[in-house]
Amino acid sequence: MLTLMRTQLALTARRCTTMAASTQIKQEVDILLKLKAELGDNNATSSQKLQLKTPKGTRDYNPEQMALRLSAMDKIVSIFKKHGAETIDTPIFELKEVLTGKYGEDSKLIYDLKDQGGEILALRYDLTVPFARYLAMNKIASIKRYQIAKVYRRDNPAMTKGRYREFYQCDFDIAGQYDPMLPDAECLKIIYEALNTLDLGPFSIKVNHRCLLDGIFAACGVPEDKFRTICSAVDKLDKSPWEEVKKEMVEEKGLDEKIADKIGGYVSRNGGRNLVDELRKDEDLMKQPSAVQGIDAMDLLLKYCELFKVMDNVVFDLSLARGLDYYTGVIYEAILTGDDVGVGSVAGGGRYDNLVGMFDPKSRSVPCVGMSLGIERIFSVLESKVANRGLKTRTTEVQVFVAAAQKNLHEERMKIITELWDSNIKAEHSYKKSPKLLAQLQYCEEQGIPLAIVIGEGEIKAGIVKLRDVKSREEKEVSRENLVEELQKRLDGMVLTSEH
Amino acid sequence: MLTLMRTQLALTARRCTTMAASTQIKQEVDILLKLKAELGDNNATSSQKLQLKTPKGTRDYNPEQMALRLSAMDKIVSIFKKHGAETIDTPIFELKEVLTGKYGEDSKLIYDLKDQGGEILALRYDLTVPFARYLAMNKIASIKRYQIAKVYRRDNPAMTKGRYREFYQCDFDIAGQYDPMLPDAECLKIIYEALNTLDLGPFSIKVNHRCLLDGIFAACGVPEDKFRTICSAVDKLDKSPWEEVKKEMVEEKGLDEKIADKIGGYVSRNGGRNLVDELRKDEDLMKQPSAVQGIDAMDLLLKYCELFKVMDNVVFDLSLARGLDYYTGVIYEAILTGDDVGVGSVAGGGRYDNLVGMFDPKSRSVPCVGMSLGIERIFSVLESKVANRGLKTRTTEVQVFVAAAQKNLHEERMKIITELWDSNIKAEHSYKKSPKLLAQLQYCEEQGIPLAIVIGEGEIKAGIVKLRDVKSREEKEVSRENLVEELQKRLDGMVLTSEH
Repeated sequence: MLTLMRTQLALTARRCTTMAASTQIKQEVDILLKLKAELGDNNATSSQKLQLKTPKGTRDYNPEQMALRLSAMDKIVSIFKKHGAETIDTPIFELKEVLTGKYGEDSKLIYDLKDQGGEILALRYDLTVPFARYLAMNKIASIKRYQIAKVYRRDNPAMTKGRYREFYQCDFDIAGQYDPMLPDAECLKIIYEALNTLDLGPFSIKVNHRCLLDGIFAACGVPEDKFRTICSAVDKLDKSPWEEVKKEMVEEKGLDEKIADKIGGYVSRNGGRNLVDELRKDEDLMKQPSAVQGIDAMDLLLKYCELFKVMDNVVFDLSLARGLDYYTGVIYEAILTGDDVGVGSVAGGGRYDNLVGMFDPKSRSVPCVGMSLGIERIFSVLESKVANRGLKTRTTEVQVFVAAAQKNLHEERMKIITELWDSNIKAEHSYKKSPKLLAQLQYCEEQGIPLAIVIGEGEIKAGIVKLRDVKSREEKEVSRENLVEELQKRLDGMVLTSEH
Repeated sequence: MLTLMRTQLALTARRCTTMAASTQIKQEVDILLKLKAELGDNNATSSQKLQLKTPKGTRDYNPEQMALRLSAMDKIVSIFKKHGAETIDTPIFELKEVLTGKYGEDSKLIYDLKDQGGEILALRYDLTVPFARYLAMNKIASIKRYQIAKVYRRDNPAMTKGRYREFYQCDFDIAGQYDPMLPDAECLKIIYEALNTLDLGPFSIKVNHRCLLDGIFAACGVPEDKFRTICSAVDKLDKSPWEEVKKEMVEEKGLDEKIADKIGGYVSRNGGRNLVDELRKDEDLMKQPSAVQGIDAMDLLLKYCELFKVMDNVVFDLSLARGLDYYTGVIYEAILTGDDVGVGSVAGGGRYDNLVGMFDPKSRSVPCVGMSLGIERIFSVLESKVANRGLKTRTTEVQVFVAAAQKNLHEERMKIITELWDSNIKAEHSYKKSPKLLAQLQYCEEQGIPLAIVIGEGEIKAGIVKLRDVKSREEKEVSRENLVEELQKRLDGMVLTSEH
């Protein structure tokens, strides 16, 4: 019965008649739907029961959001390209085993695909592990690549805080065996340029070195098997006060209180190259080979930061630890420091020399350094800026609207708009044969379209059009022959803004 | 034991020493890996067993492929924007029930996510159904939107034929209640502009109307309950000769042979507006209200195509049927007709007035017309064109390479490149402190970088640089003060090509 009805439905929907077809179809569909409901349909396809929503933790991006996002992404990509980056793309899912064992406890957040016979697959959790898999698989020894793409984490979404299960990552990495700190310093330069270009307000880029942290832990007397757990405690200092972090070290992680206090003395320090000099005078610390290595590296990095003219925004901060296990050298994190923005990292990264080796059958490693812009957080900041200024983001780039002042002039409009399109002018007109002039002009104002062409019977006979400046409402007559030329002149002189 | 060893591995990888750390780590890792292998590790994370591959039917895109793709996508997006389109983005997965019942038999190709507790999800199969869900969910009555994104089909991949399980779709749709054929004709204009701009060679856009097809079937005496199945037989005419299609109609689908022959008489016909006039003289056909509706619609569409100046490439073709069930009006499909390209559609679409209504709880419908560019096939054609011409696609946009003729001049290079970056010049230098000059210049030639700056001790002392044209190998001395200005002048005068 249901199958029959569905066939009827389909046929009805397809049936073509000369009368007002859509009305008739709608009526028939309504009748059939009612019938179907009366019969009690427990089929999942029933449109009555269908939930109209996106999956938990995900969202659609509407045209306003997309316009803002694409404009920000464009700016970021321009900077990556300025530094000679290429881009690659990898599948949205990987063999599950590629992801296994890379994310520690967070592995439980990986989205698995259903086993439908064949390979066991999972959605990617970040862009770094697929990048490492790509390098190992293709035996690539050096590359400078960026990638902006979505990643997936089956987290408990805190969407009000801007945390989603599907979100964009925006990564830049330099892979290859090079001289110390040359690529590392360029990553900091890129973060600096990106945050400046996006006009997010004042920011600070904290830098530190994993070897120096290890050296500090050793100098303070932390047992080597506690380095990692103490490091993750230090990582919480950006959100929690020292007293809480100390408590975690002592009570949860069983560290001697005196040792914790010593660590506290170190991780409260930050500065510029002066901090390098101070640390060099610390005899206990200088007994630790890792510390010496870390300090030498930081010295070189900060010198390069001076050459790259980014030191105004760079802080050597001993409390920076970064959560991820795979970092092996320099680490960094950028935060916005303006009054009107919440705390939170907008960029981060570091050196990870051993990740690619985990994929290589012969454990050949490819040293890598890279960074990730916290693009979702950046988008939120930009969105609230636009909202605060009471501006509307333009969602199209239309330059000219072709309007008619009388009925049934659609063919004349089509002739004009064809000329415009064929001259690469971005133009729209109404899809109604006889739209009201007022409605057409209002549309231009709402959409921020700068110019309108208005035609009526009179203009057509005279071989002219009225060219209207939408904002000033000034009108000028232009001959049809010179129209394209005149438009191009006017458009060249305009600074088209993406907000209005 | 294994857990302990993994901790050791991690610590080893993290240990920082002043000696050649990476070599030492590698040795230790090798020893541990050997040990692990001897112990017989049956854990899935074992790097020895890890398959280095992408999932079946998927692939990575390397920088060459991405550069070509992005340049083609840019051209296409420019055309969509020229017509005033906005863009949206929807999640890569949907509630399974959103997809259920939309694709007929092909539903078996949908990728399901594993039920990890919570909602039942599936990867999107196309962009049209999520678009319809978006319109219904947000009660949007009119929008003109484009979307370029990946979709997923668990098909048996024929990768040599360019068929993948993960691939891009490139859609443009106009939703809204408008006057007949105005948006429909614009879709054809856009296909025309896109295929022209992409420079794919000669092409033809076939158009037809679902109502006309129904009218033909009715006039030939096809029973109404066989319309759909006969329509899908007709759809095969682009790949199979009429004899085979007829056999399918008669033998498989039980159609009377005489009726099939009548259909054969119709579907062999194509032309321009002349075909409209001929069909109007067909008395049997004109008795069918759907046929009259279809012919009137085609008459109007072809008239609009003349106004839009696309008739040179448009063919009214009665054999065009299109596979998808949801079309309700005009249908179209573009094919390349050059000698050197395989047959196959590079664009297609049509009107689907009832899809949004399937999602609306009150079955409110939003009429839609749209098209999809066969972007993967377009990419293959472009790739083989580039390959045939023996050209290399540039994967970066670097304009200037900063080279040194002597050792240890990296700090001087960094000063210069900072000036360039800060003036928005796209520039690279070597990440080695003392790279060989020849290697640096070879890199410029391989990468198609047009300009190189060369410095040595002499130049530094004299406050100048050598500015080298990479292709002609001509060199000229420029003072450091005027360097940026001189570069900008040279770069302005250059037409940077994406191939070399």
